[in-house]
Amino acid sequence: MACSNKDPCKKETTCPEKCDYVSNPYLATMKEDILYHFDLGTKTHDLHAMFGDVKFVCVGGSAWRMKAFAQYINELLGLGCSKDDIPNICAHTDRFSMYKVGPVLAISHGMGIPSISIMLHELIKLLCHARCTGVVVFRIGTSGGIGVQPGTVVVTKVSVDACFKPHFEQNVMGMIVAYPTVLNECLAQELLKCSKELNQFETILGCTLCTSDFYEGQARLDGAFCNYTAEDKMMYLQSAYEAGVRNIEMESSVFAAMCNRSGLAGTVVCVTLLDRLQGDQISSSHEVLGEYQERPQKLVGCYIKKIFCKK
Amino acid sequence: MACSNKDPCKKETTCPEKCDYVSNPYLATMKEDILYHFDLGTKTHDLHAMFGDVKFVCVGGSAWRMKAFAQYINELLGLGCSKDDIPNICAHTDRFSMYKVGPVLAISHGMGIPSISIMLHELIKLLCHARCTGVVVFRIGTSGGIGVQPGTVVVTKVSVDACFKPHFEQNVMGMIVAYPTVLNECLAQELLKCSKELNQFETILGCTLCTSDFYEGQARLDGAFCNYTAEDKMMYLQSAYEAGVRNIEMESSVFAAMCNRSGLAGTVVCVTLLDRLQGDQISSSHEVLGEYQERPQKLVGCYIKKIFCKK
Repeated sequence: MACSNKDPCKKETTCPEKCDYVSNPYLATMKEDILYHFDLGTKTHDLHAMFGDVKFVCVGGSAWRMKAFAQYINELLGLGCSKDDIPNICAHTDRFSMYKVGPVLAISHGMGIPSISIMLHELIKLLCHARCTGVVVFRIGTSGGIGVQPGTVVVTKVSVDACFKPHFEQNVMGMIVAYPTVLNECLAQELLKCSKELNQFETILGCTLCTSDFYEGQARLDGAFCNYTAEDKMMYLQSAYEAGVRNIEMESSVFAAMCNRSGLAGTVVCVTLLDRLQGDQISSSHEVLGEYQERPQKLVGCYIKKIFCKK
Repeated sequence: MACSNKDPCKKETTCPEKCDYVSNPYLATMKEDILYHFDLGTKTHDLHAMFGDVKFVCVGGSAWRMKAFAQYINELLGLGCSKDDIPNICAHTDRFSMYKVGPVLAISHGMGIPSISIMLHELIKLLCHARCTGVVVFRIGTSGGIGVQPGTVVVTKVSVDACFKPHFEQNVMGMIVAYPTVLNECLAQELLKCSKELNQFETILGCTLCTSDFYEGQARLDGAFCNYTAEDKMMYLQSAYEAGVRNIEMESSVFAAMCNRSGLAGTVVCVTLLDRLQGDQISSSHEVLGEYQERPQKLVGCYIKKIFCKK
């Protein structure tokens, strides 16, 4: 396994000759690498020319939101206007969408661990083929809160599984392998600072529960099936709160595990759409939900702008 | 747990007064049910008027493919032209896409078990709110083959996990619950008959390995990480073949489990894009892959047309 996250606060003193995010001896033996779900490849595209300057990657479930993020960053960094129609680099596939604005790459990843895991494998290979170094990766998204006001942004300290354990378990050829899911602390603290400077919404540091199911896996009472009681649900959510969990989503564990394995500095920034101690259904208006969803974008944008303007 | 799949070959002799696909006592207590990822709800939409006549639901990972399927069915059933622009019912969200053509509903589900599980929970509730009965559900998709010619269509007999066991394990509040994953046999046989009648490509009945990861979870040597050898990979794929596995994909287990739990008759029909005993990368041309992907659509279309024209 690769070492834990590099400290993104420390400046690189040397320029490494090769990208070491990947850890697969077979890749060097391949004449061509087709990144199937991006519809990109080493023979068909000059990945270094296309992506060599990437320093920030921001990923999120929704393709629309990632386009909006790219447009927002475009204006924020003074590279263009927020209404510019930024082309989707993966336009020939509908699996993922990808937008590039200066040193920032925005990619959608769909919902759930398997979907984001496909995207991250191909992203890590892409960064390697493009010979990128010193890259920071953000996941921005939505989540259910536990004991926090809807609209609160949670920066993940560590992603925990359904038993509140800080690891991601993966089945490889019938055997279970576990990877740690602690995220980059320095990066998290920098984002909390950004929130104070913005002073527009509350941002907290907390544990994030990552599940493989939105309904029964998150103890909801409003799925097609429910074999447990409202009391069981409340007991589970209360234990989660006591274990330090402040929000629930569906991708952070494998994101953290793959950041740790690759050595990419990573962080997860999710807004809470509801407080699960109060209910299960997401019933706020489109306008309210839309404004909530802009919050992680603003926070990450603030961080990127700070670093970008230092250069 | 609900009973196993109903036999779709048996005609319903009575018209049940209520849909019994759901199994959740809390649903009846809710004043409103918001199907969040479809952007539909019981207060905002007349679901019975919109969906009451649905008899066939076809689901697949790609939104583009599901639109193409709806257009294909539109012409096949004589309801319109294959170039008609069928509106996306879920146009206000980018989580899933949904198209309706006569009694046929086509819905995208993204990649992986968590993503399709969200869609199926909301679909099963939708069918219940719309008071649908006698519904048959098809998953059409792509897969990696094991020991079969690329382009072969595999109709799933049973979905197996990474240890080749015929069940789906779900974590509910920290506890593991297992559900059987055998699919409707009669429906599978009907699809094999359709293939013989079409006589355009090979269709076989086989076990389908369902994984939570495309790279390491499927023993690929071309992911960002690889801690095993080419020999380990071949041994694993060979054991899969010996256990009856003919293809690998990422959604069939929870699809089968939820069909069994709800009593919906269901089948999984996936084309193989490559033979994993020969390689890992999907390197066929867009044209070849495009033609392969039409095969499950043709098979399911043939079955639907037969039933539709009997009425």
